[in-house]
Amino acid sequence: MTILLSTKAATMEAWRDALLAVDPALDVRLFPDAGDPAGIEAAVCWTAHSMAELRRYPNLKLIVSMGAGVDHLMRPPGPPPGIPVARLVDTRLTQGMTEWVLLNVLRFHRQDGEYRAQQAAGIWNELPAPDTAERRIGILGLGELGGDAARKLLALGFPVMGWSRRPKSLPGVEAFDGPAGLDAMLARSDILVCLLPLTADTRSVLNARSLGLLPRGAFLLNAARGGHVVQDDLLAALDSGHLAGAALDVFEPEPLPASHGFWHHPKVILTPHAASITIPRSAAPQVVENIHRARRGLPPNNQVDFTAGY
Amino acid sequence: MTILLSTKAATMEAWRDALLAVDPALDVRLFPDAGDPAGIEAAVCWTAHSMAELRRYPNLKLIVSMGAGVDHLMRPPGPPPGIPVARLVDTRLTQGMTEWVLLNVLRFHRQDGEYRAQQAAGIWNELPAPDTAERRIGILGLGELGGDAARKLLALGFPVMGWSRRPKSLPGVEAFDGPAGLDAMLARSDILVCLLPLTADTRSVLNARSLGLLPRGAFLLNAARGGHVVQDDLLAALDSGHLAGAALDVFEPEPLPASHGFWHHPKVILTPHAASITIPRSAAPQVVENIHRARRGLPPNNQVDFTAGY
Repeated sequence: MTILLSTKAATMEAWRDALLAVDPALDVRLFPDAGDPAGIEAAVCWTAHSMAELRRYPNLKLIVSMGAGVDHLMRPPGPPPGIPVARLVDTRLTQGMTEWVLLNVLRFHRQDGEYRAQQAAGIWNELPAPDTAERRIGILGLGELGGDAARKLLALGFPVMGWSRRPKSLPGVEAFDGPAGLDAMLARSDILVCLLPLTADTRSVLNARSLGLLPRGAFLLNAARGGHVVQDDLLAALDSGHLAGAALDVFEPEPLPASHGFWHHPKVILTPHAASITIPRSAAPQVVENIHRARRGLPPNNQVDFTAGY
Repeated sequence: MTILLSTKAATMEAWRDALLAVDPALDVRLFPDAGDPAGIEAAVCWTAHSMAELRRYPNLKLIVSMGAGVDHLMRPPGPPPGIPVARLVDTRLTQGMTEWVLLNVLRFHRQDGEYRAQQAAGIWNELPAPDTAERRIGILGLGELGGDAARKLLALGFPVMGWSRRPKSLPGVEAFDGPAGLDAMLARSDILVCLLPLTADTRSVLNARSLGLLPRGAFLLNAARGGHVVQDDLLAALDSGHLAGAALDVFEPEPLPASHGFWHHPKVILTPHAASITIPRSAAPQVVENIHRARRGLPPNNQVDFTAGY
């Protein structure tokens, strides 16, 4: 089977090698060297690849989007009609996201900013001990990513709440859903973690009104999409002192412009869309399995639901 | 029963209230207001309390040391002969230590120092993704603290090794013991976490020779005691580039003198003996239970073994 591979230049060869290690019979073409467009049967693309460009391949049977989020697929023109799209649901990707969440939850919970400042000033001073059992974590989104973060935070002893569009239950997690549930959870979230898919419903969900519902001194973590946050509203909430800090991995646009106020804000921890990690060796088996399924005429695993938007 | 309570001034009343909440019949005296020395039957003391001072109380039946480490009890003159000493084995204390360990393991694992420096410089640049499955963690000490840290790190997907004086096994942890086992584990520890008790055998265990066994670019976490580390040897290993970083919570002496090279070292993360947290409300029940046991003539739970040194 002939595959078009399109990803960042730095990881192109690692991806090709990882796919061939699982199935040496694959014919992997590195974009833009696709050869005869009629020969391409599957496209394995990162999220920046043009969906219009994929209309060039008349025999395409499958698109694999190399990430968990699929909001880029929802924008016009969208993928070629009738071609199933699979997203990655990779344990390593989930693991990387959970690491980022735990690092930043613990950073805020354990007063790391204050301790770094004390070290810089040469001050030896034990701060009042935080109580894990009283630090309420609210997670927006209880899918693969939110569910795993919830389980790991519960295991550390944090009280964990979770919000999802439709009612969902996870052992030990206090569950909320719908608009009223969102407000109720925000009002009790000392640390709010956004891991939602970006859809028309969730765009700008974190705005002046909703951030204002958080308890004074709350922290925000966003590793979902920049579009979930009204960035100016977040800056205002940090500057007013209503929020104590934010750890942000995603922005709109990306890269974040050099002049943006997040870069040098003393309450902002910034990472460059690096929270969730895709390691080709770890993700290749599911990609190859979906290619094999396409050849047999089966729908892919982890197929994107364009009605739900994720 | 009449109890002498001696701890830091800032937490004295919280401790008294927590003890009385468990047993309102207790007569709690706040040091130095002990009243009649002959009336004191139990002493609940923090680690800086003078063991010589405790010889003033002829009817003392129990000493509770308000911490996990007991090395301070081993120094002359030691506790009054024949009086059993209990240490705290508090889930909250273990939880706080595990949080500190996870925060610093994830800080180093996820290149947080580099990302903080990039943010300060306004640089948007995704660093090569670290692979959790290949980041080997070595834990010195597999007691309450080391065992809990090992379990939580395993759950995140890290390969975990552990060393203890005597052979010990924990599910999923590759176990080492004895001097040869120590060297073997150090040689494979990308991140080394010291959670040992401080004894004559473990003093200065981290010195030029043993730090030299770690893989180049390794990280060290020490939240046990300053005396485990030959501090000048650690500084040299950081300066030479052999070690990539160290997170240190304990020093010798404490507070760390203002002139010490750790304070402003770019590779050192410093906390002021604040890793492990004792919350009176959480620790009080076990203290009161040991007081009740002493009244009934029973040995305390978690009695210090002065032969083993912990």
